[in-house]
Amino acid sequence: MTRRSGGRSARVALRSAPLAEELRPVRAGLIGGKYKPLSDSDIAAIHASALQVLEEIGLADAPPSGVEAMTAAGAVYGEDKRLRFAPAMVDAMLGQASKNITLHGRNAKHDLTLSPNKVHYGTGGAAVHIVDAKNRNYRESTLLDLYQSARLAEHLEHVHYFQRPLITRDVLDNYELDINTLYAFMSGTQKHIGISYQEISYMEGVFDLLHMAAGSEEKWRERPFASNTNCFVVPPLKFATESCLVMEACIRGGMPVLMLSAGQAGATAPASITGTIVQAVAECLAGFIYVNCIKPGAPAIFGLWPFVSDLRSGAMSGGSGEQALLTAACAQMGSFYGLPTGSAAGIADSKMPDMQAGYEKAISNVMAGLSGLNMVYESIGMHASLLGFSLESMIIDNDMIGQCLRCVRGIDVTPESLAIETMREVCLNGPGHYLGHEQTLNLMQTEYIYPVIGDRTSPKEWAEVGKPDLLEAATAEKKRILSIPNQVSLPYQIDKAIREKHPIRLPKIGSFHGMAFAE
Amino acid sequence: MTRRSGGRSARVALRSAPLAEELRPVRAGLIGGKYKPLSDSDIAAIHASALQVLEEIGLADAPPSGVEAMTAAGAVYGEDKRLRFAPAMVDAMLGQASKNITLHGRNAKHDLTLSPNKVHYGTGGAAVHIVDAKNRNYRESTLLDLYQSARLAEHLEHVHYFQRPLITRDVLDNYELDINTLYAFMSGTQKHIGISYQEISYMEGVFDLLHMAAGSEEKWRERPFASNTNCFVVPPLKFATESCLVMEACIRGGMPVLMLSAGQAGATAPASITGTIVQAVAECLAGFIYVNCIKPGAPAIFGLWPFVSDLRSGAMSGGSGEQALLTAACAQMGSFYGLPTGSAAGIADSKMPDMQAGYEKAISNVMAGLSGLNMVYESIGMHASLLGFSLESMIIDNDMIGQCLRCVRGIDVTPESLAIETMREVCLNGPGHYLGHEQTLNLMQTEYIYPVIGDRTSPKEWAEVGKPDLLEAATAEKKRILSIPNQVSLPYQIDKAIREKHPIRLPKIGSFHGMAFAE
Repeated sequence: MTRRSGGRSARVALRSAPLAEELRPVRAGLIGGKYKPLSDSDIAAIHASALQVLEEIGLADAPPSGVEAMTAAGAVYGEDKRLRFAPAMVDAMLGQASKNITLHGRNAKHDLTLSPNKVHYGTGGAAVHIVDAKNRNYRESTLLDLYQSARLAEHLEHVHYFQRPLITRDVLDNYELDINTLYAFMSGTQKHIGISYQEISYMEGVFDLLHMAAGSEEKWRERPFASNTNCFVVPPLKFATESCLVMEACIRGGMPVLMLSAGQAGATAPASITGTIVQAVAECLAGFIYVNCIKPGAPAIFGLWPFVSDLRSGAMSGGSGEQALLTAACAQMGSFYGLPTGSAAGIADSKMPDMQAGYEKAISNVMAGLSGLNMVYESIGMHASLLGFSLESMIIDNDMIGQCLRCVRGIDVTPESLAIETMREVCLNGPGHYLGHEQTLNLMQTEYIYPVIGDRTSPKEWAEVGKPDLLEAATAEKKRILSIPNQVSLPYQIDKAIREKHPIRLPKIGSFHGMAFAE
Repeated sequence: MTRRSGGRSARVALRSAPLAEELRPVRAGLIGGKYKPLSDSDIAAIHASALQVLEEIGLADAPPSGVEAMTAAGAVYGEDKRLRFAPAMVDAMLGQASKNITLHGRNAKHDLTLSPNKVHYGTGGAAVHIVDAKNRNYRESTLLDLYQSARLAEHLEHVHYFQRPLITRDVLDNYELDINTLYAFMSGTQKHIGISYQEISYMEGVFDLLHMAAGSEEKWRERPFASNTNCFVVPPLKFATESCLVMEACIRGGMPVLMLSAGQAGATAPASITGTIVQAVAECLAGFIYVNCIKPGAPAIFGLWPFVSDLRSGAMSGGSGEQALLTAACAQMGSFYGLPTGSAAGIADSKMPDMQAGYEKAISNVMAGLSGLNMVYESIGMHASLLGFSLESMIIDNDMIGQCLRCVRGIDVTPESLAIETMREVCLNGPGHYLGHEQTLNLMQTEYIYPVIGDRTSPKEWAEVGKPDLLEAATAEKKRILSIPNQVSLPYQIDKAIREKHPIRLPKIGSFHGMAFAE
């Protein structure tokens, strides 16, 4: 290596060093909302239609406790056993709903504030396969995969929270599955976590585990670091009875709930994108009425979360442009109500981390951010329209989300950034270029974001460094992160007590360091 | 194969059949503009700053003919040999500029109308390498590559025009390079083409070739099917003398000009994104003054085309989030002036058609469309920050652009699409789902767009069909398209006459059918 290129490498390394949090070009909670797929009259029409649906069609299958709570607040329970809601009741309940909520991390530095248009990216989903890209294979996902994905989420800068991305297929008992999922999350990351629970009868155990992890029930309630992903509705327009009971228990236990309506356009929702939005809005408004009848102001996320079908086959197509539009419009509807919003983006239909996966994930992820979605779920690692999850794609997606966040941050127009005096200096009295100019050096790390593994070499440099392969780079980075000692798992005494009381399947953390992980 | 899956395949095939043009879910010229990276006050500040730059700093290096034309219209030629323009002169010249222009194809079905926010995607650039993805290699690009890329552009639905994407390294004489580039384009596609020319002395030959191809000068002037990509400025704020002379000749010859300012933030433009926009706006306004001094209302495209540097190394980073923002903001500034706009998006920094390339291309391409950019150049096939071009990526990118266009089209909110009656039927009296509903069948082909090679199978189906590889699918589709007989090349007699008069290097089209092409 020549002295010259050595010096250049050193400068590059210096400039690549981590920056103080407040100076970073991107961070959690940047303000989106500059992309507005719906006009004001579109929004008004969708809102009016959703109100009409709630008043005239209503929702079936609420559990007795829900019927009681909602009729007490003014809902009409029909002879057809559907609950219907007058517009005035919807208004009143929206008035009680929490508008700005905080999702806590186990470490306060990971707290997220969900006020209008603040954007956070994270995981989500229920994949049943791990993508083995090296061997072009799909295999069943395991508890170890889940733990490792939580470990990666802890270390990836642009993953702001960790919601369950996959189902552990090696834990067959449903109760043990839910308990072990929660435990694996708490062992792997201190970022905010989100989990769904299958039965109301599990919730006593779940809360006991959370209280033990927090130190006490009081400490848990002070900073609830886990939320409940609640599929409270079976579209079209039926409450999911069991999930509603889980939701009631979560609210009573101080856990924020993500009220998630996941209709599929052309299957469980109308084929028109607009109709799918109307139905999802009606369902989520009903969900919010329910939440606020149980406890006014309980922290909840307006989870307009409809999906798109490939109407030729009926299969889901989370990687489509229609999905990207649907999610962005849902973000806008949630903002219209002033509620904390969550929806799905970043899904690839592609089975492998290839160019198709890249463009599918990017289109919906960047549009979700630009539309000001508070919580962009499923934005990292998902393939095969949510059936597959890839640890390597988490690494690649982290770089992608960094670029999306840069777009969300937008352009600062200030007297200084307009740069008239800089131009005058450079053009009239200066060198005729901006290389090495003070402004250039100042903005290098605060205005620009650099990928971790993304390659920006020229073809010549690329050949010189051995033509690095993206997937190999992602695999190496995954191994590097997983080899970092786990410093966020539960304290020894607490862990010991939990293991004595709960059916924990994950080996003790110490024993992980020697454990081989699947590539 | 079972009868059942056979029936399903048949239905899928039927539904996949081409749709009448007017019913297609996407097409050239959809209306963007719902993403606005700049606020009204941002736009006003950038405009005011650009005016200040033009009045106080001005531009150097105009050729004598330009100085004469522009001073005659009120520009001030300083002792420092810079031309300066008062705000009133800028206003007056903008008043003369053509606001809506048509870019003709050799076939009228490919005509493009550039009115506010109508979006078209196409190629562009000056790559010097062809990406050989199969062998992970970069090789020098040739005239045959150029011809083949034109052939692909002719057949790819979402490539709306064909601007030169690469330099032919096997034609060493500069005049022959320009002539042969133009000839290869006219042989491969009837879509609108765009080319840059290196010297004013070449223009006589260029126009002779165009007139011969069109049938006569009159016919050429009636429907000029080629525009000139003109880098009229060497940022910061210097006219490119020779290119300006070429531009004057093009305008006199009836050729639309793309007035392209391609500064690089942190190198030839300020490091702040905002400052880079200000400089590009000032430069393009000067370019439009120049155009309208030569011929008021001459068709021209406002080519705000700044790039981003990776400030650590000074290298270009066309795949960055900063680039996506820059391009979208440039589209918005062009719309502010009501001028036809063109800029760059869809560039990958990645050397290979991998997941990084996918997300890099998608972020900027979809944002360019949503911001209402008229001409999204370089949106297809580009790698290595414009140094590499891939024929296979053209195929993959065509699918990506289809999804971007779907996003640009947006969401139709109508009484019918709100779907209240559909919901009522399905929920209260119907089957409880929308599969097979009349609305679903009606919208299947008009509301949804399907990829050509993009894979949407489930993991199970994907395994059953042999785990198709995206790059292999793209290669097969490339071969399929290139094996279609060329029906758009110049008529035999015209071609014969051209070959007798001009130094054409491309073999006669008939001889191509047997010619092997590089994979």
